[in-house]
Amino acid sequence: MAVAARLPRPRGRPPKALAGYRETRESLLRAGMAALTEKGFSATGIDEVLRSVCVPKGSFYHYFASKDEFGSALISRYAAYFAGKLERHFHDKSRLPLERIQDFINDSARSMERFQFRRGCLVGNLGQEMGALSESFRQQLYEVFVDWQQRTSRCLRAAQQAGTISRDFDCDWLAEFFWVGWEGAVLRAKLERRPEPLHSFGKGFFQLLKQ
Amino acid sequence: MAVAARLPRPRGRPPKALAGYRETRESLLRAGMAALTEKGFSATGIDEVLRSVCVPKGSFYHYFASKDEFGSALISRYAAYFAGKLERHFHDKSRLPLERIQDFINDSARSMERFQFRRGCLVGNLGQEMGALSESFRQQLYEVFVDWQQRTSRCLRAAQQAGTISRDFDCDWLAEFFWVGWEGAVLRAKLERRPEPLHSFGKGFFQLLKQ
Repeated sequence: MAVAARLPRPRGRPPKALAGYRETRESLLRAGMAALTEKGFSATGIDEVLRSVCVPKGSFYHYFASKDEFGSALISRYAAYFAGKLERHFHDKSRLPLERIQDFINDSARSMERFQFRRGCLVGNLGQEMGALSESFRQQLYEVFVDWQQRTSRCLRAAQQAGTISRDFDCDWLAEFFWVGWEGAVLRAKLERRPEPLHSFGKGFFQLLKQ
Repeated sequence: MAVAARLPRPRGRPPKALAGYRETRESLLRAGMAALTEKGFSATGIDEVLRSVCVPKGSFYHYFASKDEFGSALISRYAAYFAGKLERHFHDKSRLPLERIQDFINDSARSMERFQFRRGCLVGNLGQEMGALSESFRQQLYEVFVDWQQRTSRCLRAAQQAGTISRDFDCDWLAEFFWVGWEGAVLRAKLERRPEPLHSFGKGFFQLLKQ
């Protein structure tokens, strides 16, 4: 007993670590995702992320080597989550190809509404902030856009094969046009706290496809 | 002499104030404009703005009541500068209405290139950051977009009157579509450090007008 009483109490040990390292890391990623979609990277303090999941200050580096590594992990996670969302819509065989894109737009409007238009696109937020971020983020963010565009381009080609849109369109360009403008629409929906900018952009995009 | 020697030395007085209060305020606004177009509001520290124009730390509040008041003054100044830029293009009678919009796009691409695509749109940057900013910015930023849209809508109506674009178009909607997407294009040009996204968006916009 006497010996046990002299053992050092693991003071700095985060309570959540009891539930496992992976679980705490997961909570940090979830909290970081919320903060970065809402405020971006620069305005997000590591301390507030730790506080929001009751992880003691100072234990962040048990889980990530740096704030930049945390940011990079969040981009990867967001990209994977979003790729899943796009695939769910774009591979929905019960819907026509252009309906699938409209479904994605409607789904995004509902998602933004669910968070009172406080959360936008993590990749768009960090892209906008590039002036203040490490150069290492640039390629990673760009590749996410390229991935989303490729998925969208495949859906547009399906519309071409179905004869819904003209075969004269360059689907890669159309997909790039969509994603370039879409990030502006998400930005504006956040500013106006309403879904209209998303639908307004979608309307223009579909009108362009009628040619 | 003895009396003069006892007068308190104005220690905190910024050296630049010798050249006048207005001039120092002006330098702060210029430095703030550069920082906010590049990095946004959250990532910009007041200290670095002061340092960049050699104004001593602590004297900021001689010029602005708060960082928010500084931000608000910067939005107003950027809006005025930009309204001038738009008017210069959109009222250029030597050019056809749609050429004027293309001129604005080309001018923007050149401006971004001049700063190696580090600087974007101050209003877009702060719009993206709304999750981290005072609510007081929201209405001000929105009104700037409305102003730009109204100027663009007038130019599009001139194109309608000249018979260049269909009279079926709702020019207010077209102008909104342009500005919603354009901010996405500026974001992407900053990320990719090249003008292609601006021209790609412009190409889609003009293609839409052909209907």
